[in-house]
Amino acid sequence: MPKIYIPVVFIFLFLVSCTHTHAIETERVEPPFWWTGMKSSEVQLMVYGEDIALSRPAIDHPHVSLERIITVENPNYVFLNLEIGKQAEPGNVPITFTRDGSEHVYEYELKERRDNTNRHQGFDPTDVIYLIMPDRFSEGDPSISEIDDMYEGVDRDEPFARHGGDIQGIINNLDYIRDLGMTALWLNPILENDMPYDYSQQVGFYHGYAATDKYKVDRRFGSNEKFVEMVDKAHDKGLKVIMDMIHNHIGTHHWWMDDLPTSDWVHDQEEYGTTQFRTNTIMDPYASEADYENTVKAWFVDEMPDLNQRNELLANYLIQNTIWWIEYAGIDGIRMDTHPYPYPEYMAEWTRTVLEEYPDFNIVGEVWMPNVPTTAWWQYDFPTQSGYNSYLPSVTDFPLYNAITAGLNEDPGWDTGMYRIYLTLGQDFLYTDPWLNVIFVDNHDLDRFYSSIGEDYDKFRLGMTMIYTMRGIPQIYYGTEILKTGAGPDGLKRKDFPGGWEEDPIDAFTEEGRIELGEKRDRPIAEAYDFVRNLSWWRQDKPVIHYGDLTHFIPEENTYVYFRHDDEDKVMVIINADDEDLTLELDRFSEMLEGYGSGLEVITDEHIELGETLTVPAMTPMVLDLERDY
Amino acid sequence: MPKIYIPVVFIFLFLVSCTHTHAIETERVEPPFWWTGMKSSEVQLMVYGEDIALSRPAIDHPHVSLERIITVENPNYVFLNLEIGKQAEPGNVPITFTRDGSEHVYEYELKERRDNTNRHQGFDPTDVIYLIMPDRFSEGDPSISEIDDMYEGVDRDEPFARHGGDIQGIINNLDYIRDLGMTALWLNPILENDMPYDYSQQVGFYHGYAATDKYKVDRRFGSNEKFVEMVDKAHDKGLKVIMDMIHNHIGTHHWWMDDLPTSDWVHDQEEYGTTQFRTNTIMDPYASEADYENTVKAWFVDEMPDLNQRNELLANYLIQNTIWWIEYAGIDGIRMDTHPYPYPEYMAEWTRTVLEEYPDFNIVGEVWMPNVPTTAWWQYDFPTQSGYNSYLPSVTDFPLYNAITAGLNEDPGWDTGMYRIYLTLGQDFLYTDPWLNVIFVDNHDLDRFYSSIGEDYDKFRLGMTMIYTMRGIPQIYYGTEILKTGAGPDGLKRKDFPGGWEEDPIDAFTEEGRIELGEKRDRPIAEAYDFVRNLSWWRQDKPVIHYGDLTHFIPEENTYVYFRHDDEDKVMVIINADDEDLTLELDRFSEMLEGYGSGLEVITDEHIELGETLTVPAMTPMVLDLERDY
Repeated sequence: MPKIYIPVVFIFLFLVSCTHTHAIETERVEPPFWWTGMKSSEVQLMVYGEDIALSRPAIDHPHVSLERIITVENPNYVFLNLEIGKQAEPGNVPITFTRDGSEHVYEYELKERRDNTNRHQGFDPTDVIYLIMPDRFSEGDPSISEIDDMYEGVDRDEPFARHGGDIQGIINNLDYIRDLGMTALWLNPILENDMPYDYSQQVGFYHGYAATDKYKVDRRFGSNEKFVEMVDKAHDKGLKVIMDMIHNHIGTHHWWMDDLPTSDWVHDQEEYGTTQFRTNTIMDPYASEADYENTVKAWFVDEMPDLNQRNELLANYLIQNTIWWIEYAGIDGIRMDTHPYPYPEYMAEWTRTVLEEYPDFNIVGEVWMPNVPTTAWWQYDFPTQSGYNSYLPSVTDFPLYNAITAGLNEDPGWDTGMYRIYLTLGQDFLYTDPWLNVIFVDNHDLDRFYSSIGEDYDKFRLGMTMIYTMRGIPQIYYGTEILKTGAGPDGLKRKDFPGGWEEDPIDAFTEEGRIELGEKRDRPIAEAYDFVRNLSWWRQDKPVIHYGDLTHFIPEENTYVYFRHDDEDKVMVIINADDEDLTLELDRFSEMLEGYGSGLEVITDEHIELGETLTVPAMTPMVLDLERDY
Repeated sequence: MPKIYIPVVFIFLFLVSCTHTHAIETERVEPPFWWTGMKSSEVQLMVYGEDIALSRPAIDHPHVSLERIITVENPNYVFLNLEIGKQAEPGNVPITFTRDGSEHVYEYELKERRDNTNRHQGFDPTDVIYLIMPDRFSEGDPSISEIDDMYEGVDRDEPFARHGGDIQGIINNLDYIRDLGMTALWLNPILENDMPYDYSQQVGFYHGYAATDKYKVDRRFGSNEKFVEMVDKAHDKGLKVIMDMIHNHIGTHHWWMDDLPTSDWVHDQEEYGTTQFRTNTIMDPYASEADYENTVKAWFVDEMPDLNQRNELLANYLIQNTIWWIEYAGIDGIRMDTHPYPYPEYMAEWTRTVLEEYPDFNIVGEVWMPNVPTTAWWQYDFPTQSGYNSYLPSVTDFPLYNAITAGLNEDPGWDTGMYRIYLTLGQDFLYTDPWLNVIFVDNHDLDRFYSSIGEDYDKFRLGMTMIYTMRGIPQIYYGTEILKTGAGPDGLKRKDFPGGWEEDPIDAFTEEGRIELGEKRDRPIAEAYDFVRNLSWWRQDKPVIHYGDLTHFIPEENTYVYFRHDDEDKVMVIINADDEDLTLELDRFSEMLEGYGSGLEVITDEHIELGETLTVPAMTPMVLDLERDY
């Protein structure tokens, strides 16, 4: 029956053909969606699927065109450059892949942008940033702490293990954070870190710095949607959100690592080894090429393959990933991890591109450098000899951190004690805008402040007062307000916030808990909390602290006196770090005090009349909100 | 006899008139002479004499005109601005002062400029500077050690007294200095310091930093003519001469102090007190006005009135004084003392004007600042926020000095030991031209190098090797080559050179003397001398050390490796400051060693074949003058 035979033959041939070419697969398309109405009309999709490069993609859609198709040595990847016209409408854009007569359609979604009121706000000197390591702050959803198909579970007794903190835990405590006077949150990374661990080697990935998927919140922290919920709720409460990003490296179990797009996607660890962390090689005019490469090409640690951002497809991927998270989650700022370790030209391009799309946004680079020159080099418009411009607005002020912690611990001398702090700030002429520096006394990589000052509450008050009244954007590490301790190995610097877990015996999120904990630990924990809260709320309404000029005086008797002042307002800060009371002759400060006869001492809430002298008790800070004579 | 009577009356009236107006006196005219054919056609004379301002000066001379007559509050001074035309001839220019019919003529000399071949040569990285404190180096003319009408005599047993060294003593030892491989001399100040002393308070003026006459060499050192003789003889032997100048202050017994030209000629010590030496206030963006004034207006010490260079007559005086000494004595460079203490705008004007008149000249400012940024700020073309330009070519590299002395004495750590030196040099991107920095391990204000390193000859060799092979202009303090010691109070850092005095039992200017002294002191003095001499002569003929690029490697095992290289030449320097021998894997330096298979080790004069490794003994420097493979 020929009438039947012929179709059967065709069906047979068709099936053979399908089997021969396999089904066309698009296992991953990233970014997973995009938006209409962005400033830049371009987006480059990374499409991953077996032999996807062997099929022919096409787009036939109003105002959306496929400008370039880029294939690489691995046929499982194809990169598609889409041009999204101004008139493009939100909705799905079908991308048709054809090969040997077979066809696969991928519906790529273009979303409408959200109303961006209160989103992408940036951060600036009006803010106080609260830094949280999500795994160690609070567990809000115990049901997701252990996920069957993921490597690590939870072991709270092990410093290098996951402890179960999550995004819901942060949401639950947003009121605590805002009530403490914080105005911004910086979370250590929350993207998927599905990595095997070895606690005996202090290797665990609770910290989040070894991403295995750059588009997915770790399921043990929550979900992409849960993160957006947190950002929205934070915004509702007046808290901005700063996202931690890492473009220097990924985790060894990132899905790329099983099937790299190109052989140069990550740097060869055999060839380049592990970094010596000498980031000064970036701007050191005498650095050898080998040492320079040791910074930009060597691996950070064995579990973190070093990305090669000189591969332009990877660079595009990372830049779009950033814009995707800003647009998707509505975050207000980024803290870029290990900022000096990728290629500097890439970091500049990334920063410039992100700030071009979001002009009100802010970025702080973690530039953990050995001194002021190498730190200031990273801030935008530094007059580099090469003409290099980082475009980076904010830098982490490690020199000030070093000066404060050393200065509080050492005997005063020509350049030690308060003089160290004074001399460090005296180098500020190198910074394009030191008011944008993020300033701190500790963070997740540093010994807890209370430990670094020998658990001396006087020193705590001196240090915190400086952070709250100095130029820059203060950053407070979670738990510092309750005198948490911890030093040495990283895991010990990142202990759990007491009360963050249902089973915790004491809840330091409450005043009773802080009092109880203080008694148990024999530390003035409730007092420290009140001290921090008081300064936070006071600072919040003081433009003179945010943007006012700074004038400081040569320290005497290990006492550092400085003023913040603008046309409206003036504040006198006295840091007596000496073991003796000091009676200041106020005549010395007449250029600042003229016209001011009294002030409110912010820490004690006492009204003080200024005579010829002012006595400052030993190891005591004073913050005098000056009142003009009339 | 009327014919007689009338003249007698006239004579009588004339005498009365003279008595009434006094004789017109010109007690001092400074500069004491000037030259025709200078680039700038202007010179301003300070004329001092009782009531000189009440007479009328005039000049009627071909091509020389009196452009301005400036009087000030003190009538004993008048300032005359002369314009010396291009066609003016050398010779005396009569300046006629008239008052009430009386007249006084001062013959102001305009000299012809000397042939300036081998004069005003400048100094640069091809040089090695030998710093001499003239009072402490050698006595060549015992007849002038004590001068009847001057305050201080000689007491060699008293560290703060004059010891009698003089210019003839330097002339006598020019061959020693040149034979040591030096190419330039810097003398501590030689101008008159006729000041009362108080050794019980460590106050003496052998050091020369309290001038009492800015146009006269101290007679106990010699004379102006003797100084010119020394400069000429030094030039004949291939030694340049750098003169020490001080524009910040004078001595309390400067002749001005008895009869100040203006009340603002010096700053009022009552009002401004004594400096706290915090020179960072000059560029510190936060410095209070009071602290800034404490640098530029306060006195250096009680015996040194602080000059007010904002007085334009004084500024002119000082600038002309400088040009006078350059032109008169033919010096090649200036070391400006306390460079940050006068008004910075004056220092810029002074520097700019001097270098405009003498473009080949060089000036090094003593900028004793606390860190690299504040040091680099002083070098010409530093991108200051105010637009300030110092015009200063050379700065004293105190940060490198601090790093070398600390680095040799401390245990190695993240930023200590050799790392401190490495990290200090890594900030060189701040300098406009670090090759012009003057580098040193000690000077007259610092502990003797051999004392600062605990009299450890290994450390001596490490430190000196760095100074001789690093970018910059090495400066060697007299006696450092024979391991002189001395620390603490200034007088002890400036002990006499053994053999500089007729009565000295040992003469360290001779090899036998150095051997004898070494045995007596149990120090390798002869070896040290040979070590320094060897490196000096080697360096002299090595353009690659003068101007070659510098490439350094991250120190490992407290061993610092760097290369100097240009198109022609390459030198590898290894500073093993560790207590253990180190076997270097040379593969690490392949970018530098490629094409070089051997080298001459300059210190031991051994030929070394480079294999895969190179072993460097503990606490040992190596300087490998590399040889290219053919």
